[in-house]
Amino acid sequence: MILSVPAGVGTPALVVDLDVVEDNIDRMARVAAVGEFAVRPHAKTHKAPQFADLQRAAGATGLTVATISEAEIFADAGFDDLFIAYPLWLDLDRTDRLRRLADRARIAVGVDSVPAARRLGEANLPVDVMIEVDSGHHRSGVAPGGAVGPALAAAEAGLWVRGLFTFPGHAYHPDARLRAARDEETALAVAADALRAVGLHPTVLSGGSTPSVAYSRPGTVTELRPGVYVFNDAQQLALGSCTTDQIALAAATTVVSAPTPDRFVLDAGSKVLGADRPAWTPGFGFLPEFPEAVVTSLSEHHAVVAAPPGCPVPRIGETTLIVPNHVCSAVNLADHLVVTRGGKTVTHWPVSARGANL
Amino acid sequence: MILSVPAGVGTPALVVDLDVVEDNIDRMARVAAVGEFAVRPHAKTHKAPQFADLQRAAGATGLTVATISEAEIFADAGFDDLFIAYPLWLDLDRTDRLRRLADRARIAVGVDSVPAARRLGEANLPVDVMIEVDSGHHRSGVAPGGAVGPALAAAEAGLWVRGLFTFPGHAYHPDARLRAARDEETALAVAADALRAVGLHPTVLSGGSTPSVAYSRPGTVTELRPGVYVFNDAQQLALGSCTTDQIALAAATTVVSAPTPDRFVLDAGSKVLGADRPAWTPGFGFLPEFPEAVVTSLSEHHAVVAAPPGCPVPRIGETTLIVPNHVCSAVNLADHLVVTRGGKTVTHWPVSARGANL
Repeated sequence: MILSVPAGVGTPALVVDLDVVEDNIDRMARVAAVGEFAVRPHAKTHKAPQFADLQRAAGATGLTVATISEAEIFADAGFDDLFIAYPLWLDLDRTDRLRRLADRARIAVGVDSVPAARRLGEANLPVDVMIEVDSGHHRSGVAPGGAVGPALAAAEAGLWVRGLFTFPGHAYHPDARLRAARDEETALAVAADALRAVGLHPTVLSGGSTPSVAYSRPGTVTELRPGVYVFNDAQQLALGSCTTDQIALAAATTVVSAPTPDRFVLDAGSKVLGADRPAWTPGFGFLPEFPEAVVTSLSEHHAVVAAPPGCPVPRIGETTLIVPNHVCSAVNLADHLVVTRGGKTVTHWPVSARGANL
Repeated sequence: MILSVPAGVGTPALVVDLDVVEDNIDRMARVAAVGEFAVRPHAKTHKAPQFADLQRAAGATGLTVATISEAEIFADAGFDDLFIAYPLWLDLDRTDRLRRLADRARIAVGVDSVPAARRLGEANLPVDVMIEVDSGHHRSGVAPGGAVGPALAAAEAGLWVRGLFTFPGHAYHPDARLRAARDEETALAVAADALRAVGLHPTVLSGGSTPSVAYSRPGTVTELRPGVYVFNDAQQLALGSCTTDQIALAAATTVVSAPTPDRFVLDAGSKVLGADRPAWTPGFGFLPEFPEAVVTSLSEHHAVVAAPPGCPVPRIGETTLIVPNHVCSAVNLADHLVVTRGGKTVTHWPVSARGANL
């Protein structure tokens, strides 16, 4: 990973180590090859076609996105196979935009209710449907046995039900990764059986999140949709789903204050890193150069860091790195990323889909 | 406050009730008039000159900002009295930009260390210095008695020490607002005495945060720097520092999923609302139309809402509002705000200083 702030980078800024990105993408491709999974990476993490190009070159079958506006940006960049893994509710604007999108890309959209399936059918759009199933995260998605309702409604409305998808987000908890992967298997299998019993034939069983993919077994899912793996972050480190040298992105920061010997303040706060803070992370980020230090709080422009007794601390004016807890949130706050190789800046890439929430 | 999602607003979007904004600004002006305080609102909350214009019209003496890039944007909009309330560490780029800024606006910058004071002095810039004092929040800022060190270093470097400032951020805790205001008084008084004892004469004693200003007493501070009050948010509601009808901003959302009778999902997540979640807030936001509902979790594009038994719930496809926990984070994620009066959209204002972290 990046070992220190590259020369000439003004702080705060998000810095990417492209060698590590490529290694992360290659590793995921090998996981997929061994398990005979398709990989459809979630582009919400990097929000930049340059990274999606690398994923495609490594064999990605298409991209996953969360919103129509993300889909538009990646379609503009030449990606023609996009899955909007979200239970869209179509208003007039979304219907028009989805129609234009479907003119230039193969599109699938998430559905988890009969009303949404009927509405999508009434819009008469050339898009496929993926039924969302809840495998234990309890966010959106129908209970596995309940997949039949929206699937039949979609089929009756003339839409092709391409398959089933789930997000095993409950893998985001210590020691839950294996269990979440098994829950994913079960939920997809139960839902697929239920669909087959009514004459529907789901061809894609889509799952996977960065913490759970290591436990995905051949034959149980056909497609993985990890996002975070391209960069990794302090959450993945805390979960044990990456090592420090697989972390490809960090915020370059400067020590702006050191009021007491055991506390210093960096110039990256929640407006750079995001405020994500699950109870199981040690703090609000990870400092590679001071791994024992704890980011005890974030303000909008301050990271307050506590150093244990005897731990070295940087001085005012020195630069250091901080790895965000949740890299998707951090990237979405930046206009561009500083791209480096071997500790040297090679280019800047815009975060083209930053703020693409619509 | 806004009572429902205005017609024609696509979700997710941040919607502002301009009548409430004006009322909030007027109320702060009255607090200031009674206490004979200057008001220098923190522009990091709204990040848009249109709101700063309203604050100036109501008597604000200048603006507070957190970064040089915020200062540049407000200087471009004609604001010529700016306090960068942050312990800046000047690199070459910041030095150049601060010099150009000082050509067109009266600038003060925060200092909390001898090295930063000396560096600012070496840069030979026509800016004033405000010494940052820690009144109990334990972020940046010297201990009150320690203000002499950086103040003397600044004075010896030829800079004018205009005064002292503190952020009583420990007011962000239930029942801590009064105590934090008193801590602020004491810290500023101790630091001012210490400065006077070495022949320095701080003319500005600056404090204030939205939760603490109600407890500021005449003669103890000369200037208040609240930011959030212009919109208020779910944190202020939980702290008791605003009422529901003083909330001027909410996210317009659509119910996209309702997998179980007691749970529904809105299409605004942490990429719209921010992920701020202090332990003392009931959840990740407040639903004005369903005040008993609890936002139990946020994903990037999902707010998962639990409804207590018997509580009415919206149906899939219906729209409703969600007030973010921390409005500064939410505004910084938006490209523009939908501005309404009387429940009708009147205009859109760009968030000109969104992402202005440098």
